[in-house]
Amino acid sequence: MTYSVAVSGASGYAGGEILRILAAHPDVEIRTVTAHSNAGQPLIQHQPHLRSLAHLTLAETSPDVLAGHDIVFLALPHGQSGQYTDALGDTPLVIDAGADHRLESVADWDRFYGGDFHEPWVYGVPELPVAGTKQRERLVGASRIAAPGCNASTVSLSLAPGVAAGVIDPSDIVTVLAVGPSGAGKSLKTNLLGSEILGTANPYAVGGTHRHIPEIRQALAAARTAAIEPGADSPDQGIRISFTPVLVPMSRGILATSTAPIAPGVTDDEIRAAWESAYGDETFVQLLPAGHFPRTADVLGANTALMGLAIDRAANRVTVVTAVDNLVKGTAGAAVQSMNIALGLAEGTALTVNGVAP
Amino acid sequence: MTYSVAVSGASGYAGGEILRILAAHPDVEIRTVTAHSNAGQPLIQHQPHLRSLAHLTLAETSPDVLAGHDIVFLALPHGQSGQYTDALGDTPLVIDAGADHRLESVADWDRFYGGDFHEPWVYGVPELPVAGTKQRERLVGASRIAAPGCNASTVSLSLAPGVAAGVIDPSDIVTVLAVGPSGAGKSLKTNLLGSEILGTANPYAVGGTHRHIPEIRQALAAARTAAIEPGADSPDQGIRISFTPVLVPMSRGILATSTAPIAPGVTDDEIRAAWESAYGDETFVQLLPAGHFPRTADVLGANTALMGLAIDRAANRVTVVTAVDNLVKGTAGAAVQSMNIALGLAEGTALTVNGVAP
Amino acid sequence: MTYSVAVSGASGYAGGEILRILAAHPDVEIRTVTAHSNAGQPLIQHQPHLRSLAHLTLAETSPDVLAGHDIVFLALPHGQSGQYTDALGDTPLVIDAGADHRLESVADWDRFYGGDFHEPWVYGVPELPVAGTKQRERLVGASRIAAPGCNASTVSLSLAPGVAAGVIDPSDIVTVLAVGPSGAGKSLKTNLLGSEILGTANPYAVGGTHRHIPEIRQALAAARTAAIEPGADSPDQGIRISFTPVLVPMSRGILATSTAPIAPGVTDDEIRAAWESAYGDETFVQLLPAGHFPRTADVLGANTALMGLAIDRAANRVTVVTAVDNLVKGTAGAAVQSMNIALGLAEGTALTVNGVAP
Amino acid sequence: MTYSVAVSGASGYAGGEILRILAAHPDVEIRTVTAHSNAGQPLIQHQPHLRSLAHLTLAETSPDVLAGHDIVFLALPHGQSGQYTDALGDTPLVIDAGADHRLESVADWDRFYGGDFHEPWVYGVPELPVAGTKQRERLVGASRIAAPGCNASTVSLSLAPGVAAGVIDPSDIVTVLAVGPSGAGKSLKTNLLGSEILGTANPYAVGGTHRHIPEIRQALAAARTAAIEPGADSPDQGIRISFTPVLVPMSRGILATSTAPIAPGVTDDEIRAAWESAYGDETFVQLLPAGHFPRTADVLGANTALMGLAIDRAANRVTVVTAVDNLVKGTAGAAVQSMNIALGLAEGTALTVNGVAP
Repeated sequence: MTYSVAVSGASGYAGGEILRILAAHPDVEIRTVTAHSNAGQPLIQHQPHLRSLAHLTLAETSPDVLAGHDIVFLALPHGQSGQYTDALGDTPLVIDAGADHRLESVADWDRFYGGDFHEPWVYGVPELPVAGTKQRERLVGASRIAAPGCNASTVSLSLAPGVAAGVIDPSDIVTVLAVGPSGAGKSLKTNLLGSEILGTANPYAVGGTHRHIPEIRQALAAARTAAIEPGADSPDQGIRISFTPVLVPMSRGILATSTAPIAPGVTDDEIRAAWESAYGDETFVQLLPAGHFPRTADVLGANTALMGLAIDRAANRVTVVTAVDNLVKGTAGAAVQSMNIALGLAEGTALTVNGVAP
Repeated sequence: MTYSVAVSGASGYAGGEILRILAAHPDVEIRTVTAHSNAGQPLIQHQPHLRSLAHLTLAETSPDVLAGHDIVFLALPHGQSGQYTDALGDTPLVIDAGADHRLESVADWDRFYGGDFHEPWVYGVPELPVAGTKQRERLVGASRIAAPGCNASTVSLSLAPGVAAGVIDPSDIVTVLAVGPSGAGKSLKTNLLGSEILGTANPYAVGGTHRHIPEIRQALAAARTAAIEPGADSPDQGIRISFTPVLVPMSRGILATSTAPIAPGVTDDEIRAAWESAYGDETFVQLLPAGHFPRTADVLGANTALMGLAIDRAANRVTVVTAVDNLVKGTAGAAVQSMNIALGLAEGTALTVNGVAP
Repeated sequence: MTYSVAVSGASGYAGGEILRILAAHPDVEIRTVTAHSNAGQPLIQHQPHLRSLAHLTLAETSPDVLAGHDIVFLALPHGQSGQYTDALGDTPLVIDAGADHRLESVADWDRFYGGDFHEPWVYGVPELPVAGTKQRERLVGASRIAAPGCNASTVSLSLAPGVAAGVIDPSDIVTVLAVGPSGAGKSLKTNLLGSEILGTANPYAVGGTHRHIPEIRQALAAARTAAIEPGADSPDQGIRISFTPVLVPMSRGILATSTAPIAPGVTDDEIRAAWESAYGDETFVQLLPAGHFPRTADVLGANTALMGLAIDRAANRVTVVTAVDNLVKGTAGAAVQSMNIALGLAEGTALTVNGVAP
Repeated sequence: MTYSVAVSGASGYAGGEILRILAAHPDVEIRTVTAHSNAGQPLIQHQPHLRSLAHLTLAETSPDVLAGHDIVFLALPHGQSGQYTDALGDTPLVIDAGADHRLESVADWDRFYGGDFHEPWVYGVPELPVAGTKQRERLVGASRIAAPGCNASTVSLSLAPGVAAGVIDPSDIVTVLAVGPSGAGKSLKTNLLGSEILGTANPYAVGGTHRHIPEIRQALAAARTAAIEPGADSPDQGIRISFTPVLVPMSRGILATSTAPIAPGVTDDEIRAAWESAYGDETFVQLLPAGHFPRTADVLGANTALMGLAIDRAANRVTVVTAVDNLVKGTAGAAVQSMNIALGLAEGTALTVNGVAP
């Protein structure tokens, strides 16, 4: 069958990328695209790269317009999805690319986002290890899916195998990410102007304020298999993260350098085996051979997370460097991959594993 | 008086930057510029931006050519300075921009560089806290100066105040640096091609192999004031560093994100005071107000290190983000500033504090 | 059937892009990849973005290794294809991405390239107007195809409709191109280093020396329908081109701004109609509505040439701005599209019309 | 004496660059900086690279605040200077970086700008040839100066020597410019976002609509020495320009490729001599040797216009490629250089000839 699809936020970066991927999907028909201030204009005016969708016009984002499709993608600013999700009760599959349905903890929501709390949906990172299995299993047949935060899923995928296997200590994680500005969306802010981005590296949300921190904590807590770990009963569940994103002059891409202390007594082979066993059979999350590390260019436009692992005994830390395309594996690709799983389609439909480089 | 100067490696990036700065220095005359494979060619052919030096021709780098000047700058690949330093015994001031005279530990030299060990010279980072004083004092009247490694001095300046004051624990430092490719020099390597650098972030020397690690360890060990600290008698002197540089698409600049655990019992005020007291009177190393963090654009072309400090109690870490221009404060500016101090000139002569932005 | 394919020059940029496209082609099997100095190494080491081809190893480029396939792609430096084409006499389809088989004029070859002249093959730009028809017709069933020069095909596509319709005067064309460095290949040259490319615009081959000039002249001469035009019997066939390429800091992409005088007496409608009738039915060459002009980002990774047309009566010139991805529509995409036509496959197989933006 | 200075528009790019240059000027005191929506905030918040001016606070831009200084710089959006210039009648020297006082033709103003016409001031491009002399002479003692448009002065400097000497035909000029986004100011527009600028080339104002076209026409008309030239009595004075700017991913810089037909009968030597005699004695406008062409990196941060000249007999055109830093020689540097001349100071005070590269 062919599924009818509506995509809201279609004039933005996340919405545009969902459309770019779906345009190559044989099982869906993009029937409706919506926007807010740009409603009434041709889609192609705001997404001039989507040549095959030149026939579409942006409708107003409203519950009525979104209703009546088999699948609805919400690619709206954080805090705006909630108002639509109630009205979409009859829609068989809703996938939210925003944050509204990601967090399980009301306290975390209040602290990092604020405003109305919405119930958590199934988290759309299929390869993520969760207590003895993979998140993929929860996505089968799901009707409500929360696509991940791009930085959050990158760091969670980087470290979850080690946390699950108990070979690293999650209580002192340090992660620094080089990120492209497209992750911030098509927002008119001075610090996102080309003149402010070109030729410079800009840190932001330094010191523990970034909204993806609780999302990582939640994913890593879920990855733990042991019933009781040291500190797991503390408010932060024994998972502490120093998290610093740095805007760098590339339109897309996240290169996350994540480190955690080596757990006492584990061998190098045990460490490496944790990641190999977690991702050895995965198509879209790949561990590079020892001594190799990825570049973001290697995954541009692709749904692939590439990671390299180093064991630094002098520093007593494992370092995992992971590259993703923030708009694909970090957002739109994760959403479509999750959709494929939920619908029982081949998981990789419309998704590419090869990047566009150089 | 006017000092006569010779600059070797004048066709490279570090040599070119030394020349750019010295061209504006009222007290020196650039008499000789030397190169190796490019000898015999006009300097301007290799440094087309140095319009005021269009009259100079590259001579062959040799002890004879370099001798007879008041000041000699060596901007040569690592391991090549040593052969000249013996022959320059009569030269009043020699400043090496390479690594040959930076390390005090033969073991570190053997492990990270290899080849002949050369005696350490006075380290050219004037603002660096060293046991109760500043490195500046050692530079007064110095005749042999080792300009710092650009990444090393950036990280050392970032953390030394906290180490000196005992407010951070140097045994678990994690630093990740976004760096521009000019730090790698004008080397013909595939991974430095424009097509490989544009639009992508590339990690390198992951996992504890970067040569600047022992240089940082040495500087931070020197910053400690307490006679005995925990672990200070171990081979690594209780200073352990997870160090990951990431090439990003900007020609110049280092943005170093450095974190270390907060020492037990110290207050936020005590932490911030450590940096304020270290750099409050400095012109070229500036701590930004709380909540502010620097961009590399802010220091482009300038001799300024700008840093922002965050205290992340949830992660129990201090995060210092520091921006420098790797070719100026990281190399050539540090060399000229050190020269000014050694000769008793005004320390900031020919150096700018304002960056070229946007 | 499935066609067996060999790709030479597989460690370079053009070869890599041919492989990226073919990896998604349902009718071919990539059996052999070859290189010269990199022979014996895994392909993935040189093309780390081609994850789906991680099983391939680079063989030595030689006639024996290339023989025995249904299709051979030659992606070699200019002047090197000729030595293989004789030995591939039994190969049903050979496509050369180099220049060796593009030019029909021995005089042009001698002046712009030099060395042995090789017979011209069918030119691989299907949409190009040629004397009353399209180049596509000549590609049907072709066994030897010369893929175009990326700059040349971009400019030829930009102006051929106007030349064919007689609405512009080809005797005073001026074209200036902003080009990314990947067009220059993976060559180790100082001027292609990241530090030399970032943050700067660099002209090259200024003043009529670029090798793509005769290729454009040849294509535009072929586009003319009138038997005799003024100057058509002169050595330059009445087609004169001022051609200036400028390297800019984007890894891929050509943005060609091409202008020519308006022919006497033609109306604006007649001018615009020339392009509309030429490309109105094309998928991969699209004319934007009046007042709209393309960006290279709109075609990144896509086989699409997007163009905008302005009629500047004050300057008495038509200006056509065309964006292509130099590695796709400019090289590898044109090669695969031509292959599809030659083999009777659907012309767009494995080729995308939507770009990867932002 | 020390001149007191006020700079309006101090939170923008042009204003910031004026401040950066003046901060190094020994003869001025920056007493007042003004802005509109940012008034009341510290300058450093908007210009974090201007460390030496951290003590300044932005005042509201108003006639009262600007009055009472020796020199006032207006760096306001086009059309906003006029309201202040009347009120600054007592100010000895006013320099407008906007367009309000550049054009002599009311018809051009109406067509390209619109709104109230303001009287033309002395044009601030000292090296420009004007009927037998240089524009410099008109700047001596000037009290009202119009700093040039960055693109306009770049093209005018490129071609004026040839027009003045009669060796090129100004009736069919074609110029295409690669420009960085800082020339568009700190405006919050979607097409200026980093994600829209990175990795792509974007044309704008195609087809004869750019506002700098009449400014170039005016400058080239003034350069002509012959009393009557063909077409000089037509509305466009026989000067016709096809002008296409292309945004490329570099924060600063203009690389203008300008071509014009070779005048009948002139020799190559005569052509080259026109430029050599015009600029042979200039410091800040330099003609490179034959066969050499400039990069924008060579003039980054410098007040230098570097140009290369090619004579393309096959295309019958002279091609001049000129690199400037749009914010320095294109705007703020031209303003300060003009100020120096007007005040009788050394012309190059506070201006650098060497670029910051790589």
